[in-house]
Amino acid sequence: MIETDILIIGAGPTGLFTVFEAGLLKLRCHIIDSLPNPGGQLVELYPKKPIFDIPGFPTIQAAELIQNLQEQIKQFEPGFTLNEVAQTIDKQEDGTFIVTTDKGTQHKAKAIAIAAGLGSFEPRKPLIENIEKYEGKGVEYFIKNPELYRNKKLVIAGGGDSALDWSIFLSDIAEEVTLVHRRNEFRGALDSVEKVQDLKNKGKIKLITPAEVIGIHGDGKLESLIIEKENKKIEIFTDYFIPLFGLTPKLGPIAEWGLEIEKNAIKVNNALDYQTNIEGIYAIGDINIYPGKLKLILCGFHEATLMCQSIYNRINPNKKYVLKYTTVGGIQGFDGTVKEAEKAVVKSIE
Amino acid sequence: MIETDILIIGAGPTGLFTVFEAGLLKLRCHIIDSLPNPGGQLVELYPKKPIFDIPGFPTIQAAELIQNLQEQIKQFEPGFTLNEVAQTIDKQEDGTFIVTTDKGTQHKAKAIAIAAGLGSFEPRKPLIENIEKYEGKGVEYFIKNPELYRNKKLVIAGGGDSALDWSIFLSDIAEEVTLVHRRNEFRGALDSVEKVQDLKNKGKIKLITPAEVIGIHGDGKLESLIIEKENKKIEIFTDYFIPLFGLTPKLGPIAEWGLEIEKNAIKVNNALDYQTNIEGIYAIGDINIYPGKLKLILCGFHEATLMCQSIYNRINPNKKYVLKYTTVGGIQGFDGTVKEAEKAVVKSIE
Ligand SMILES: Cc1cc2nc3c(=O)[nH]c(=O)nc-3n(C[C@H](O)[C@H](O)[C@H](O)COP(=O)(O)OP(=O)(O)OC[C@H]3O[C@@H](n4cnc5c(N)ncnc54)[C@H](O)[C@@H]3O)c2cc1C
Ligand SMILES: Cc1cc2nc3c(=O)[nH]c(=O)nc-3n(C[C@H](O)[C@H](O)[C@H](O)COP(=O)(O)OP(=O)(O)OC[C@H]3O[C@@H](n4cnc5c(N)ncnc54)[C@H](O)[C@@H]3O)c2cc1C
Repeated sequence: MIETDILIIGAGPTGLFTVFEAGLLKLRCHIIDSLPNPGGQLVELYPKKPIFDIPGFPTIQAAELIQNLQEQIKQFEPGFTLNEVAQTIDKQEDGTFIVTTDKGTQHKAKAIAIAAGLGSFEPRKPLIENIEKYEGKGVEYFIKNPELYRNKKLVIAGGGDSALDWSIFLSDIAEEVTLVHRRNEFRGALDSVEKVQDLKNKGKIKLITPAEVIGIHGDGKLESLIIEKENKKIEIFTDYFIPLFGLTPKLGPIAEWGLEIEKNAIKVNNALDYQTNIEGIYAIGDINIYPGKLKLILCGFHEATLMCQSIYNRINPNKKYVLKYTTVGGIQGFDGTVKEAEKAVVKSIE
Repeated sequence: MIETDILIIGAGPTGLFTVFEAGLLKLRCHIIDSLPNPGGQLVELYPKKPIFDIPGFPTIQAAELIQNLQEQIKQFEPGFTLNEVAQTIDKQEDGTFIVTTDKGTQHKAKAIAIAAGLGSFEPRKPLIENIEKYEGKGVEYFIKNPELYRNKKLVIAGGGDSALDWSIFLSDIAEEVTLVHRRNEFRGALDSVEKVQDLKNKGKIKLITPAEVIGIHGDGKLESLIIEKENKKIEIFTDYFIPLFGLTPKLGPIAEWGLEIEKNAIKVNNALDYQTNIEGIYAIGDINIYPGKLKLILCGFHEATLMCQSIYNRINPNKKYVLKYTTVGGIQGFDGTVKEAEKAVVKSIE
């Protein structure tokens, strides 16, 4: 059983920044995310796009903002349960909560911060008969560890940035990369499209377009795919099939937790601390709703900050917290680091 | 008469970022501040200190954050009325407001954003008889334009960073710089203290400590100061006397505007849009108060953003605003600049 002060569901910008504000208050955090990497929408949907409305950054790439946030929270040593979906929640008699994931991992916490964005990101799966039977047995929707594919044969399907970028990256690692797309046209960054063209010319990527994977064969594990191209069927032998058709967010299990839901989001008390109708469970960032709500990154930061103060008071009902500015009080990380502003000296001039 | 959509009182981080969020909604802004430079507390009280709790910046110097914000809002061309205190407000029949400063400058706006922090910063003045009579006639509390002091004789008083740094800077410009402090010890950055020691040794700064300026003489304008040092009185002839004893914030005239005040701050509706009890007047950042309020920079950013949406609806009651992400919609500056994220191409691979 993993134990922590605040269990955060969702490793998007809001969940990540929560670790920082909690850390200032000496509260420990653990984060669950269904994706293999932290970053939420920014990393999954638009890692290379510039954002213009983060205060203090005239412009910043989405992936860079996430990197900065990870750097900022490092000192508070958050725990992570990645690749798992928070599935059920149980409130204990003593007011703590136990959250269990789809893989059975249990987490016990004094407060829950739902920072689940638009919901847990799940891959859009192609409609191929029996595909579920081969999941984890040759069919993969995420590339978690590229080394898995060294000297293997892969078929990647899709026509967007993910399919293009992973085809390029894996063409150096795999024995053979075949890219299947139902149109001739790809939609992505210009240099990615050009790079794939180049690798195709050099024979390092095989391209099959316009075409679709329509069947899977194999005994216990994936052995071959049936691809339909211009009304002809071809069978291709391969070790892996990686359909990259994008991710769709699903509110999913959280919808069953007894929380008040409105427009696919969780209602919170924005007049105080972003707490939900269940005491001890808070919702911050894109996942919550209240009058005037804006689904913006900077709003999640503020919500996380006010929530942490409320959680502090919940956990320490008899302590009086006095706000110290970071420039004045410095920061004491859980990893032993201390960041302090340079102090003024008092020195006489002779 | 200066006319604008949103008149912002206070050029601290909250007021500055308001210009950005308003600009995205095509609303123009004008800012009044009692100080000669934008930046509020960050520039006046701790320009060189690192801040650790701005989301996305593991650390940033206060003055640098303000520079970044100015860069970020430049494209929306805000107007500034600096060195003037917003003194009176009149609500017109048509729902607009007229704000007049202590120097008589009039501003007409459709909505008012009070981002006045802890109040308008005013210099701590030394208790010297008749000093008011010489203000602007040799006695200055701010250094607005250093060139004013070229080849002049100056007496600077104070023992902190401002007194040290300006003595150093002006020692190159003025004919003579005398620094008076009531103790031998100075309190400031180590290198500033050492630099003053060095300039004193080289005869470029005259130091009189422990001592105090106790009298001012002059016919119509400052001519000499009486300085008491160890019970002896000395008369020094000088063109300027610059006491740098720090600034204190005063809520001042805003307290008389009919707004609900609690603990020296303005009560707002935090459950919606940070509006005050007077429709069309909002209060954001350190100046406001509501249950759970934290006086932090990142909170001011969120408050400014929600407020701008509310002002947009107030000014355009019949238009429906649809939120566009900056990464998707880009930014159209009032200065003609357009910032756009790189678009995906759709291109076939042969
Ligand atoms: C194309 C695009 C452009 C954008 N541009 C901007 C912009 O310019 N400025 C701006 O401010 N905002 C922008 N946004 C919105 C911004 O990305 C969101 O406001 C932000 O991502 C919200 O952060 P979050 O942490 O609340 O949620 P998310 O980033 O959505 O992260 C939530 C995380 O929670 C995980 N999760 C959810 N449920 C579960 C569960 N049950 N178990 C495990 N994990 C779960 C998800 O997998 C996800 O990783 C843009 C969004 C898009 C799509
Ligand atoms: C030493 C110190 C360290 C700090 N460290 C941190 C930190 O680490 N993190 C953090 O988040 N916050 C910190 N803060 C707090 C932070 O500085 C404030 O939250 C922030 O400045 C508030 O911004 P603001 O724009 O609301 O107001 P301010 O920065 O106070 O700006 C208000 C401006 O309005 C002007 N004004 C007021 N009334 C009038 C009037 N009637 N007419 C004209 N002008 C007027 C003032 O002159 C001032 O320039 C610190 C503060 C101090 C003093």
